[in-house]
Amino acid sequence: ESFKAGANPGITEFVGTAIGDTIGLVIANVDPILHAKMKLDPKYRSIGILGARTGAGPQIMAADEAVKATNTEIVSIELARDTKGGAGHGSLIIFGAEEVSDARRAIEVALKEVGRTMGDVYANDAGHIELQYTARASHALVKAFNAPAGKAFGLAVGAPAAIGVLMADVAVKTANVEVVGYSSPASGTSFSNEVIIMLSGDSGAVRQAVIAARETGRKLLETMGGAAASATTPYI
Amino acid sequence: ESFKAGANPGITEFVGTAIGDTIGLVIANVDPILHAKMKLDPKYRSIGILGARTGAGPQIMAADEAVKATNTEIVSIELARDTKGGAGHGSLIIFGAEEVSDARRAIEVALKEVGRTMGDVYANDAGHIELQYTARASHALVKAFNAPAGKAFGLAVGAPAAIGVLMADVAVKTANVEVVGYSSPASGTSFSNEVIIMLSGDSGAVRQAVIAARETGRKLLETMGGAAASATTPYI
Amino acid sequence: ESFKAGANPGITEFVGTAIGDTIGLVIANVDPILHAKMKLDPKYRSIGILGARTGAGPQIMAADEAVKATNTEIVSIELARDTKGGAGHGSLIIFGAEEVSDARRAIEVALKEVGRTMGDVYANDAGHIELQYTARASHALVKAFNAPAGKAFGLAVGAPAAIGVLMADVAVKTANVEVVGYSSPASGTSFSNEVIIMLSGDSGAVRQAVIAARETGRKLLETMGGAAASATTPYI
Repeated sequence: ESFKAGANPGITEFVGTAIGDTIGLVIANVDPILHAKMKLDPKYRSIGILGARTGAGPQIMAADEAVKATNTEIVSIELARDTKGGAGHGSLIIFGAEEVSDARRAIEVALKEVGRTMGDVYANDAGHIELQYTARASHALVKAFNAPAGKAFGLAVGAPAAIGVLMADVAVKTANVEVVGYSSPASGTSFSNEVIIMLSGDSGAVRQAVIAARETGRKLLETMGGAAASATTPYI
Repeated sequence: ESFKAGANPGITEFVGTAIGDTIGLVIANVDPILHAKMKLDPKYRSIGILGARTGAGPQIMAADEAVKATNTEIVSIELARDTKGGAGHGSLIIFGAEEVSDARRAIEVALKEVGRTMGDVYANDAGHIELQYTARASHALVKAFNAPAGKAFGLAVGAPAAIGVLMADVAVKTANVEVVGYSSPASGTSFSNEVIIMLSGDSGAVRQAVIAARETGRKLLETMGGAAASATTPYI
Repeated sequence: ESFKAGANPGITEFVGTAIGDTIGLVIANVDPILHAKMKLDPKYRSIGILGARTGAGPQIMAADEAVKATNTEIVSIELARDTKGGAGHGSLIIFGAEEVSDARRAIEVALKEVGRTMGDVYANDAGHIELQYTARASHALVKAFNAPAGKAFGLAVGAPAAIGVLMADVAVKTANVEVVGYSSPASGTSFSNEVIIMLSGDSGAVRQAVIAARETGRKLLETMGGAAASATTPYI
């Protein structure tokens, strides 16, 4: 009765897994009663499900690429307080689609993208920092962070939250960017130990701001807990 | 000054411990000022206290058996975000009683039951699933989950939450059951990385739905993180 | 590009670190847009930042000494659900100052005090207890706990929360103290697995109440998880 890690579970709805204990699933026809309880838009009978123990930003960025590439919409984004004893979030992202093939394609794209969007996550025993950047924000970033659609978007996260405050200050002083949002343990997070700054504006400026935050954040984090390598490969 | 684990602490109020870092205590006469701050019903001067680091469902199910068996009521049920780095909840359950002997008996019953109600908890490094079932819901299940009193009740939990979504869909499609509740990281949980479905109805149907959710959830969880054995002995 | 733990990161804003993954930082002139997003009082252009993965009580007590000793104010206190898989909080405390030298001095005092205020934290694998006491509450304790300014203040924390309930009862029965507050997983905490009682009144009575809670809490915690030593050196 027991299954091996990584093996296909032999379940039609299973799409795949990725770093961060990320799992991707689809449901072709959500049960109507469950559909109502989940408060899904009636026009989507099929859903894609992207969930993770570690990471919200990487999965949201990945979902943003997935909605750009497929005929789907982001129905809901929920942030758990998780990361398996770490300072941040896990995530549950639901895509809506009229056809299950679209939902499956969105999940496939997202699972593949998570490897890239984990690239500017740096962690050690003391905490983590995370940077994200895209030249063009789409539906997932609008939904999660109120990002202006179609414009460049970036975010910088520091944990413990104190590091994030300084990263935010460095980011906004570095380049002429618009501050779309600021989240902290008691406001805008699920009580994670993070400060998050969300930036929009000219693509060069947003990228420059995020890179400056990364340099400062990484130095502080490594002063606290030693070397903090990229979770995969830096992409910004 | 230091005490050994498992030894009796020599404190009158101590009743015992159980799996999940569960502890049971009683207070014969709660201090009146504290009584008011805790917003306890004035008619109960004695309380029983059941608390745990790991688990809310198992302790609530155990408390349900305890109120059936004793002259007590459930005063409050609070869910902490805990499980010691895991994806779920810890719990704090307060019983009210007119006599401390009743409170003590309720805690004794609950501590004993927790061993059984942990039986359909399956965990590995990636997360956990949990199933519960009773032929007759009593006060604790009414209080915690809005379960219809006296009817069969079941719940299915998946963590990371994505697994719980599919378990919920499988459960409601398997048998003709009523969906009493649906909780997710941002709604109805304490930001745990879980989706929880609560079911009521015909006892055979509820049991069948819960078992189907278990089969699907366990396969997905084991695909992510390898073998996930029962925490004690399966009971459903 | 990688820095060693404990080394100075070569960043002007860095002040130092302390136990509990505590970090202290200052910003001389907070960026005006960030200043607005953080909802800081316009009169403070300089801020001090004290953040930690493990501990809120110890850092708040330390901040209280820091505001007494410097020309600063407590701007905000936020509690993350953290402690790195433990049952309690991390923290983010912001000091406001007109001059950055004042902010820096406050953070220096606070970092030094954290060593002392961690003295009555006792932890093992099952959970932790924490006691705090001061003869005279100042701005940080007023802000965080609604403590009456200038009067003796104490707090007792037990985790899992069940232990905290009994500690609270013992504390208020031991001496004639005023109960300033009572927090639990679902009320007044960030869903931590703690019960916290906050006490004010005559300094001898408050101290006596806190010490009695410590004796009971430590016995229960050690019954659950074995020896629970002080994190540094007991001070109460």
